[in-house]
Amino acid sequence: MQTEAELKDFILNGHLYYIPHVSIDCAIFGYHEQQLKLLLIKHKAIDGWCLPGGYIKRTEKLVEAAERNVKVRTGVDNLFLQQFKTFGDPDRIQFNKFDQQQWLELTGIESWEDTWLFDQTISVGFYAITDFSQTELQTDITTEKCAWFDIDALPGLEYDHDEMVREALHTMRVQLYHYPIGINMLPEKFTLSEIHALYETLLGKKLDISNFPKKLMALGLLEKLNEKRSIGAHRSPHLYSFNKEKYGEALKNGVVLN
Amino acid sequence: MQTEAELKDFILNGHLYYIPHVSIDCAIFGYHEQQLKLLLIKHKAIDGWCLPGGYIKRTEKLVEAAERNVKVRTGVDNLFLQQFKTFGDPDRIQFNKFDQQQWLELTGIESWEDTWLFDQTISVGFYAITDFSQTELQTDITTEKCAWFDIDALPGLEYDHDEMVREALHTMRVQLYHYPIGINMLPEKFTLSEIHALYETLLGKKLDISNFPKKLMALGLLEKLNEKRSIGAHRSPHLYSFNKEKYGEALKNGVVLN
Repeated sequence: MQTEAELKDFILNGHLYYIPHVSIDCAIFGYHEQQLKLLLIKHKAIDGWCLPGGYIKRTEKLVEAAERNVKVRTGVDNLFLQQFKTFGDPDRIQFNKFDQQQWLELTGIESWEDTWLFDQTISVGFYAITDFSQTELQTDITTEKCAWFDIDALPGLEYDHDEMVREALHTMRVQLYHYPIGINMLPEKFTLSEIHALYETLLGKKLDISNFPKKLMALGLLEKLNEKRSIGAHRSPHLYSFNKEKYGEALKNGVVLN
Repeated sequence: MQTEAELKDFILNGHLYYIPHVSIDCAIFGYHEQQLKLLLIKHKAIDGWCLPGGYIKRTEKLVEAAERNVKVRTGVDNLFLQQFKTFGDPDRIQFNKFDQQQWLELTGIESWEDTWLFDQTISVGFYAITDFSQTELQTDITTEKCAWFDIDALPGLEYDHDEMVREALHTMRVQLYHYPIGINMLPEKFTLSEIHALYETLLGKKLDISNFPKKLMALGLLEKLNEKRSIGAHRSPHLYSFNKEKYGEALKNGVVLN
């Protein structure tokens, strides 16, 4: 939404284009050089930070709704979004936190409770991991700002979004053992130290470096190149790359990594 | 629902007690002596088999809705239900498959399209594993029958329920590597062969028996008892049991098994 006319129509008639009672929320993790961040937004009508999200068009699949909502609210595009959990609890949203004055005048409606927006909502959580240095953030008419926060220094989030972040992190870390990760977050050719640092940062714990890449190699995901990188007088570590075919298969079928 | 009056009220006024546009569907896997089965129901108003499911009361958490729906439709109680995926696609439900004559007369409504039930629905999938020999099946007023089917001989299911079963099986098999399983499906004291057979049956593949229990032992989940079972002249395998404390912790925090 970019105009007030669109916003007014959304409040008055949104239930005709969107599925009421169901929303999407997205935990977008950003990795770059051993830092892990989370993308948060500040709605104009809510005092505090939230995960980006929104509603599902009646013509959309869930994942399409997630992609569209992340893009319009944050400018971030082409994410590989994965569902992690759906949240439903009568107490999960406190509507009184919504600033009622800001937009009510626009619509001519007397009370927010007369709109389709103020009723119980189930929210489907998606997560993604991207390189935050490659993203260009931008906001829409309902969003005051969006920004990357260090995963260890998050502000307290609105509604049940703290719980969502915990669940998203847990699922992301479990899925690191079952799906390949790294394309788009590592250079085309990388050292074992670089992929090791990626895994350690995402997992939030130390991994045995001598043992770690063996399984990736055994699965055929990682290929040792006949090439080294010179990083100092006596230091020229071997370069590796992903086998894209095996990587694609593993994304589809899953693997077991330990 | 057990009476026609309740059914009529559900069709006419259900949107006041239930959240419209959101349903629950449950894949209940049943294990017993190396057999894996799935619990299916036949609604009176739909020609074909479905997963048990239903709507979420406005006062319920999601998992409570799942437990209640499984119990009323199938009689099966006390399940450890886990979310696996939420399904949303404009084409996922074909309402014309619904037998419109059976209950319309009861309500006095002219067309199903005038009810809250005939609009787009997102469905939250849950799965559970139980010992099917311990269950007592029973039906409610909307259910013609419910029954256990061998996992390798399922009928084609209605709507998107075939996809739901595939996704539930996939998630269950991934989660076998991250959460303990077996209490309620094995005797209090069991042999390594018995727990090995449980894992092989659930995973649908062979596991190396010499290697398999080591990780369970190393994690402290499995304890070797100073006791043997006599099953023949020269065969008396050691008995094992779960360490309930470690098992509970692992259920809560997850583990990595390989």
